[in-house]
Amino acid sequence: MAVGKPNTDPLIAIDGVSIGVGCAGIKKPNRQDLVVFQLAPGSSVAGVFTTNAFCAAPVIVAREHLSQGDIRCLVINTGNANAGTGQQGLDDARETCSRLAALKRIEPEQVLPFSTGVIGEYLPMQVIANALPNVTAAMSASHWDDAAQGILTTDTRPKGCSRQFEYHGETITVTGIAKGSGMIRPNMATMLAFVATNAKVEPAVLQKMLAATNEGSFNRITVDSDTSTNDACILVATGQTESPAITSADSDFYRHLLKTVSEVMLELAQSVVRDGEGATKFVEVAVEGANTTEEALSVAYTIAHSPLVKTALTASDANWGRILAAVGRSGVSELDVEQVDIWLDEVQIVSKGGRASGYTEAAGSAVVSQEELTIRVHLNRGDVSDRIWTTDLSHEYVSINADYRS
Amino acid sequence: MAVGKPNTDPLIAIDGVSIGVGCAGIKKPNRQDLVVFQLAPGSSVAGVFTTNAFCAAPVIVAREHLSQGDIRCLVINTGNANAGTGQQGLDDARETCSRLAALKRIEPEQVLPFSTGVIGEYLPMQVIANALPNVTAAMSASHWDDAAQGILTTDTRPKGCSRQFEYHGETITVTGIAKGSGMIRPNMATMLAFVATNAKVEPAVLQKMLAATNEGSFNRITVDSDTSTNDACILVATGQTESPAITSADSDFYRHLLKTVSEVMLELAQSVVRDGEGATKFVEVAVEGANTTEEALSVAYTIAHSPLVKTALTASDANWGRILAAVGRSGVSELDVEQVDIWLDEVQIVSKGGRASGYTEAAGSAVVSQEELTIRVHLNRGDVSDRIWTTDLSHEYVSINADYRS
Repeated sequence: MAVGKPNTDPLIAIDGVSIGVGCAGIKKPNRQDLVVFQLAPGSSVAGVFTTNAFCAAPVIVAREHLSQGDIRCLVINTGNANAGTGQQGLDDARETCSRLAALKRIEPEQVLPFSTGVIGEYLPMQVIANALPNVTAAMSASHWDDAAQGILTTDTRPKGCSRQFEYHGETITVTGIAKGSGMIRPNMATMLAFVATNAKVEPAVLQKMLAATNEGSFNRITVDSDTSTNDACILVATGQTESPAITSADSDFYRHLLKTVSEVMLELAQSVVRDGEGATKFVEVAVEGANTTEEALSVAYTIAHSPLVKTALTASDANWGRILAAVGRSGVSELDVEQVDIWLDEVQIVSKGGRASGYTEAAGSAVVSQEELTIRVHLNRGDVSDRIWTTDLSHEYVSINADYRS
Repeated sequence: MAVGKPNTDPLIAIDGVSIGVGCAGIKKPNRQDLVVFQLAPGSSVAGVFTTNAFCAAPVIVAREHLSQGDIRCLVINTGNANAGTGQQGLDDARETCSRLAALKRIEPEQVLPFSTGVIGEYLPMQVIANALPNVTAAMSASHWDDAAQGILTTDTRPKGCSRQFEYHGETITVTGIAKGSGMIRPNMATMLAFVATNAKVEPAVLQKMLAATNEGSFNRITVDSDTSTNDACILVATGQTESPAITSADSDFYRHLLKTVSEVMLELAQSVVRDGEGATKFVEVAVEGANTTEEALSVAYTIAHSPLVKTALTASDANWGRILAAVGRSGVSELDVEQVDIWLDEVQIVSKGGRASGYTEAAGSAVVSQEELTIRVHLNRGDVSDRIWTTDLSHEYVSINADYRS
């Protein structure tokens, strides 16, 4: 189950990125579960990682390696998160890097490892070691679609997106893939995203671009409020064009690239929500008239996490009382409820803290029966707006998560 | 569906409290949906109410009347929460008080109104007005069990509890009833509780006792993290004994009564959780070794609200990775994950942030298959402990809340 149509446009290759995908059999046989990215020498790499205090071993190792720079490979396994695995987990993540490094004749510190899957089990190192030579023997720039498939776990469909723009006669391409459908409240979640461009961008500037675009995309989605131990989002700039390097965020080229990277990141983030576990709705929660971003997000997340709001969405029930109750308990200090207005798309359901005059249940039901809708709340106390994206809470969600390990 | 056996001991009458229960037909016909409590002159009444900024009309009126003292009647309707109903809702709550006051020859301000049910619809005043004379014509001290039934909404069974103790030759009785099974994260929830004793307690001291006992009971439970607009908990002391009045919290009699009221409140709060919507498990989440109560509760509630932990409980899956991930994202500053230990009852599943050595899945499964269990987390950073009670998240929860209004 997923909301809306998947993106079926083929992903566009990025010069300087070649990809290998294989079936190692980490959790199940005959499933693509091991992906290797190889980056051209001189590529810049930026990363943002989970804020969960219990971060997985590969996150610790990836952060460590990334801080040393000159990254040449990424290796991603599914079926096992290598989280909650202590020293053994760290050793395994490092060994994965070493084995790939030996095959590619680079240093282990030039590899970033990523894992996603079940928490608390050790990586099957022999299985990974056996598969790596085959995966690395068949690398190609055209394997983006296979990679999008190869990083999935409980996802029902691959998530990828490419965008291009011309800049002074050069074609700049941005291509990204992502996985994730449960434990999704990034900041980050069991969410992995890999985005690459052929533009040349200095590492510090690239990190700034990633932080900015991540904030408006992956840090604005929630499926189930659970933040995973393994989230990571990586942005690569291979520099395989004739365009000059971007050395500052204060340049026209930076702004063009920022816009396109933002579009790709937002599309990927929204596809994660659309494929949220058991999702039958794709819902934007927009909060306007707040004093601060924190206030706006606090109201938005309280609505998005309310099981009562989520189950009403599943039932296509325009139960505005549940939305109103969520606003009321969101913890905004000195909230004047008599100023609050709420809409479902263009239908006003609450005016000044009470049922909007002229509101009919038929009008509300019509909106909430849609597969996609916006819940818009105006607090009428300031000028700050923000918005996030979420899903409903269906029987399917319970089935998926009550049966995941069986 | 509810967890554990219901309390089937008959509730013990409280001298000075008489009760009327009727079928007004507020939402459905032939259902007890209107309850009136009449209190002896001189009774002390204390109350705590929802912290939701969108509080219902009856909460506003009850707070107002309570502040004036000398309360003689409580009136409770189910089927309609009279919340999100603006000025009309306030007028309706006041009119309910006036009508009851006229029948009982008291002032409207001596009545506290309570409503629970659907949010956002106006009270059917004519239906209530028609029913009040019958309800008040058949008042009796022995109607506690009927009242426990008459205040229910989506609850599957009544919740009541009586305790007695002897004090200097006098029998002091405490009897309470409660309702609530969804929108339960008090502080307070769609949770109503009425507790009475025949002891004599000065109003200010009674309020202090209520605040203390509420903190350890109703403010320590959560079903679905949603805080309702209508929560209220009322403690009445009729003073219908020969025992001296309790005029200070620093007295032996106060401590005896506090202990018994605490027991009744905790039993009621836990019965609300046991009857949580769709509950198949009753789970204590205990957090030890925190620096502050806030820290302990933050970890406890993050675990209790995690849909992934809750669905694992439903599946009787000892998925300690999900518990560990919840601890990690609970926002405790500078949490040293290498110090965290976790147990399911007496089975240690996590030691120093990793899988406990000697832990077997069979041992974990055996605990989590029980209907009742404790998740115990030791943070090993301070001396503060606290605990809360919660339920799992089942298909039944989704069914109840996706179909509630239909």
